[in-house]
Amino acid sequence: MATVSLIDYEQASADVRAVFDDIKRTRKVDDVNNVWKALANHPATLKRTWESVRDIMQPGALDPLTKELIYIAVSVTNGCDYCTHSHTAAAVAKGMTPEQHGELLAVIGMANETNALVHGLRVPVDEQFTR
Amino acid sequence: MATVSLIDYEQASADVRAVFDDIKRTRKVDDVNNVWKALANHPATLKRTWESVRDIMQPGALDPLTKELIYIAVSVTNGCDYCTHSHTAAAVAKGMTPEQHGELLAVIGMANETNALVHGLRVPVDEQFTR
Amino acid sequence: MATVSLIDYEQASADVRAVFDDIKRTRKVDDVNNVWKALANHPATLKRTWESVRDIMQPGALDPLTKELIYIAVSVTNGCDYCTHSHTAAAVAKGMTPEQHGELLAVIGMANETNALVHGLRVPVDEQFTR
Amino acid sequence: MATVSLIDYEQASADVRAVFDDIKRTRKVDDVNNVWKALANHPATLKRTWESVRDIMQPGALDPLTKELIYIAVSVTNGCDYCTHSHTAAAVAKGMTPEQHGELLAVIGMANETNALVHGLRVPVDEQFTR
Amino acid sequence: MATVSLIDYEQASADVRAVFDDIKRTRKVDDVNNVWKALANHPATLKRTWESVRDIMQPGALDPLTKELIYIAVSVTNGCDYCTHSHTAAAVAKGMTPEQHGELLAVIGMANETNALVHGLRVPVDEQFTR
Amino acid sequence: MATVSLIDYEQASADVRAVFDDIKRTRKVDDVNNVWKALANHPATLKRTWESVRDIMQPGALDPLTKELIYIAVSVTNGCDYCTHSHTAAAVAKGMTPEQHGELLAVIGMANETNALVHGLRVPVDEQFTR
Repeated sequence: MATVSLIDYEQASADVRAVFDDIKRTRKVDDVNNVWKALANHPATLKRTWESVRDIMQPGALDPLTKELIYIAVSVTNGCDYCTHSHTAAAVAKGMTPEQHGELLAVIGMANETNALVHGLRVPVDEQFTR
Repeated sequence: MATVSLIDYEQASADVRAVFDDIKRTRKVDDVNNVWKALANHPATLKRTWESVRDIMQPGALDPLTKELIYIAVSVTNGCDYCTHSHTAAAVAKGMTPEQHGELLAVIGMANETNALVHGLRVPVDEQFTR
Repeated sequence: MATVSLIDYEQASADVRAVFDDIKRTRKVDDVNNVWKALANHPATLKRTWESVRDIMQPGALDPLTKELIYIAVSVTNGCDYCTHSHTAAAVAKGMTPEQHGELLAVIGMANETNALVHGLRVPVDEQFTR
Repeated sequence: MATVSLIDYEQASADVRAVFDDIKRTRKVDDVNNVWKALANHPATLKRTWESVRDIMQPGALDPLTKELIYIAVSVTNGCDYCTHSHTAAAVAKGMTPEQHGELLAVIGMANETNALVHGLRVPVDEQFTR
Repeated sequence: MATVSLIDYEQASADVRAVFDDIKRTRKVDDVNNVWKALANHPATLKRTWESVRDIMQPGALDPLTKELIYIAVSVTNGCDYCTHSHTAAAVAKGMTPEQHGELLAVIGMANETNALVHGLRVPVDEQFTR
Repeated sequence: MATVSLIDYEQASADVRAVFDDIKRTRKVDDVNNVWKALANHPATLKRTWESVRDIMQPGALDPLTKELIYIAVSVTNGCDYCTHSHTAAAVAKGMTPEQHGELLAVIGMANETNALVHGLRVPVDEQFTR
């Protein structure tokens, strides 16, 4: 149960519909995911968030699948259930293999472990890293 | 200042030296970083951590640079100063360009933002993500 | 499912009932929320937590609604499902409008994004901030 | 030491200067803070971040000081040194009194404590919160 | 719903079965928990994780119950639902009393509160702690 | 540099001095640590925090050293520099051996790793844990 109502296309105002239409066109989908229906309660945040996600996740110096892997790494570390599910699904849609998924999680797990070890040991940064 | 002493090769026991030697050989470096000198206070943890990092970060279904980007994403999200510095340096050594670094941080920032929005809205997971 | 049993007023010991009574009186409610029934398994923690919450959340230099917004910001950032729901409900009860809720989440999202950007860039603190 | 160079106005490209000019004009300051000089390494992220911060932090249904308090709550919870310093300074500039600062931190501390208690008890969400 | 299929003993490959057998033998249980069935999708991670957990959690300078309490403290702070449930159950199996559980949560709550206060105040480390 | 001034005994008001005196008496120390001098800017928070810490950390169903280990586990997971230093020092003062410190960090590291793996796999809670 969300803290807001989910707003469907039919109930949406014109500015929300314009964003929903852009999402559906860009992603070639019939309907938008729940996160957009929830964000639609605050049209300015919906628009800003969608435009940022659309621009940031497009192909660039990093390919779209790599960007999804990074997104998953953050979402897992933050313990975000929804984001882990939706971006794992997006990564699969962009070609992530089960073996890649396994290695992704291994790196995420290891990084969280060594982050903690370093935080416990309070290791001073090596000089060569800060030159 | 660390919570433990940093153990140099000269002071190290034989089992610690064996790990230090493997790190230097594998990474083709003259000395190990501070994190290993700090971990050397508990040889079992040093050995386990090094062997895990070595195995997980080797080329596999994901290439070594992609693994570094994932490592950075976790370290940044956890606010780990040392790990962010050391893995950013490692990524640069493996060919990360400034443009790739910029896009990496943009994705990390966006993921942290949308994780928070989703946590605030408590968006229910779409049915199609859990099939 | 909680890791402890929820203790209802009927089953509660005298010292737990005294706290429950103070909660019901202070908040003008007929029953206490689940968090208090769970905390009742350790009466000392129940008493200390309630008295701290009661004292800290009362009107002061900051008004009660502002305090709820701050509480939500922390709870969202920590990904606390229960706390986000209960304090969003409390904020609504204290007059939070949908527009305020939308702006609150926008600020929380942006802060989480820029925290991550700053953590990735390891920006040194400007001199004027530490004078 | 940052993971990137800080870019001053003199070295900046035209598109970076345009953002710096907008920051200086909007905030009525002579120079931009380090975070913007670091973000300038990726002009698209600089522009997007500044425009989002500028729009989100302007007066709306929530006043600017309340927004700063929320920003601090997130930054403290994430342990972001830079952000805590810069937004505490910003809040003081917008009129935050020492007493308000004290109450802000008390609420942040309490929220982090009860978030943890609730996470340890795994308290089920009360029915009335999800209606 | 997991992001992977849970792999039961019957469907498992020989290397996965070998790990499952070691878990069942070590823990004297008839079946392994869901976490191992999920990790079985990546046999190398299953093997590495199990062997690390087995070695780290065995009696040493710290007794097994104390290690479970530490595990719970981390899991609660990270908001990990599964881990909090499984390690609370493991601690109970190793003799944790309700009173110990209550004190454990009180310390976890207090530590999260003072961590936040310290992060908000940015308290400089006392000289005597870093000698 | 803190976000507030550190208040020494000489500058302190009577109610702050009363808390400082209780800290010095209870802990048998000549001066209080920086965290208390920072908290002294808000006497109500100083008093509440000290009394909670004093009561929670006293010997009970868990011994004082075990409580320090739990405190460290939380502080490391939150990346709190000050708290990790001060509670590691406190644990050493209460008898923590280097081997115990090593095992403590190994458990903390492992717990952070498996928390992340579980968050990435979204493992459903086993039925027997929630009975």
